[in-house]
Amino acid sequence: MPKQKAYALGIDLGGTKTLAAVVDITSGEVVGSARKRTRAERGQDFVSQRTIELATAAITAAKLDPDAPPIVAIGVGAAGQIDRKAGVVVDAPNLGVHDMPLGDILGKQFDKPVYVGNDVEVAAQGENIYGSGRGYNNFVCIFIGTGIGSGIVQNGRLYTGLTGTAGEIGHTIIEANGRICGCGGRGCLEAYASRTAITKAIMAEIHHGRPSILADDAARQLRQGETVIRSGILADAIQQKDELTIEVIAEAGDFLGRALGSILNFYNPDCIILGGGVIEAVDLLFETAVHRARTTALAAPAKTPILRAKLGDYSGVVGAACLGAQTAGYQFS
Amino acid sequence: MPKQKAYALGIDLGGTKTLAAVVDITSGEVVGSARKRTRAERGQDFVSQRTIELATAAITAAKLDPDAPPIVAIGVGAAGQIDRKAGVVVDAPNLGVHDMPLGDILGKQFDKPVYVGNDVEVAAQGENIYGSGRGYNNFVCIFIGTGIGSGIVQNGRLYTGLTGTAGEIGHTIIEANGRICGCGGRGCLEAYASRTAITKAIMAEIHHGRPSILADDAARQLRQGETVIRSGILADAIQQKDELTIEVIAEAGDFLGRALGSILNFYNPDCIILGGGVIEAVDLLFETAVHRARTTALAAPAKTPILRAKLGDYSGVVGAACLGAQTAGYQFS
Repeated sequence: MPKQKAYALGIDLGGTKTLAAVVDITSGEVVGSARKRTRAERGQDFVSQRTIELATAAITAAKLDPDAPPIVAIGVGAAGQIDRKAGVVVDAPNLGVHDMPLGDILGKQFDKPVYVGNDVEVAAQGENIYGSGRGYNNFVCIFIGTGIGSGIVQNGRLYTGLTGTAGEIGHTIIEANGRICGCGGRGCLEAYASRTAITKAIMAEIHHGRPSILADDAARQLRQGETVIRSGILADAIQQKDELTIEVIAEAGDFLGRALGSILNFYNPDCIILGGGVIEAVDLLFETAVHRARTTALAAPAKTPILRAKLGDYSGVVGAACLGAQTAGYQFS
Repeated sequence: MPKQKAYALGIDLGGTKTLAAVVDITSGEVVGSARKRTRAERGQDFVSQRTIELATAAITAAKLDPDAPPIVAIGVGAAGQIDRKAGVVVDAPNLGVHDMPLGDILGKQFDKPVYVGNDVEVAAQGENIYGSGRGYNNFVCIFIGTGIGSGIVQNGRLYTGLTGTAGEIGHTIIEANGRICGCGGRGCLEAYASRTAITKAIMAEIHHGRPSILADDAARQLRQGETVIRSGILADAIQQKDELTIEVIAEAGDFLGRALGSILNFYNPDCIILGGGVIEAVDLLFETAVHRARTTALAAPAKTPILRAKLGDYSGVVGAACLGAQTAGYQFS
């Protein structure tokens, strides 16, 4: 007899897009999904309405049989600071959201238990249960996006730390008195290896007159209100051997690799997992980082596996669905 | 009825000195101890004989009643790379020791179970069970000496990592392409904030003609074969307002603080504990580091307690005795 399926709804609420998906939590398979731009600029009520709309659309898209088991729970990963116990998005500048009781809102709408977590945390949980983290007990799952965050898995479970903020690897100092970071500090990893940092470095050189095939594309994209160069555009530029892009990406990878080496030395995890669109699209970033990590780490931990995230865009919704299901009492073997 | 006492023998085998102590493992109290210079230059057999000699002397010094309970086990912390399962000091350049089966040697001599661990790991365990770590479940205990190492406690237990080398915080990159470190890397914390780094910075300036009240003292001490300036000498120089010493210590504390801030952000522990002779003796180092850590960390973790180690010179022997006792089945509440 095949294993009985079970379903949960996962929502990945990001600054750029919101993705909702019905996930078969016995396999990690996405059986139906819906995605739209978040449009955070339209305000908190809009964001919460859009979240409900996309959740409903994902359920419709899943086309579950009338006799299929019900959706057991909802999990959300939101790009901000979360009060997990209260199910509240406390502060999320990229979502234009403040003290938003998303747990209550979704719980009332769908009459299910709801887990609200941080976007990076839920994505790490996705990789933990159905991605590259399977079979590893202690690891760090790092996502490179407009910022850089990570989730720490200890003994197979997410470790959130004293203030619930563990994993803020983007604010590791890698260059004392270095570049100014969005956090107000100096020399943070995020100021060197995030997609925002890569964009700034490329655009600064272009404004300074350096030739690049990105000069038109990137400038147009940024004029249209996007804040960072898309991963696909970076990948194309590298394939076309654009010297500036190659140089900036290699530099970012080099800084990222030093931070990875420091993590291998200090935390000595079973593996490191790297994810995010730019890691998926741009091999040079991943490869440079891995090379530098291995030459930075001490001999013993230098050989630790450094893997790519496996679930891609879906790590957030799969992890959120799994965390929702765990809140409802579901146990993953 | 008072709690029944229980004893274990702890040994702290360091590059400079070896300390052995009989510890009441029900209270963490040292009831007898013996200490001598290690004299690693005399070779491996000498080191193992001296360890046995000091262990015997500590037992004699303890003057346990004839009807006292027996010593249940031996624990050792050695400054090097350890195979904990085999009880072997695999490689310890500072001890002049290679593949030394210390577990077997001490086990045969004293007919007790023996635990052999790393010096920093056992000191962290001392602080965990009877020092500043009491009441905290997840913390990092950092020791500043000739190098910089740390022990990570997770859920009340030491976490040693994939290759048994977790806690190598001295080789966290804080200045990409910065000072050359003893590990062969560049920009490691250890190259900025260890007693070795402080010594190098002070002596370089003195050789360059900069006035300092340390010019005679430190030079004489180093001529006599010591490799680092003693903590007490540094503390005296600061008290006498020696400008060079104050400047170098403040710089070291500033770098240390950035690394602490990075740990608060990434690992978000319940507390950080700082130990080692120079932390005990030189308030300026501790205070500068704490100040910088609080301004480096993000708002939520910035208030995390940063404590001084409580057991001082005894954290190693107390922790080693506790780990020995745990190996023999003793459970700490």
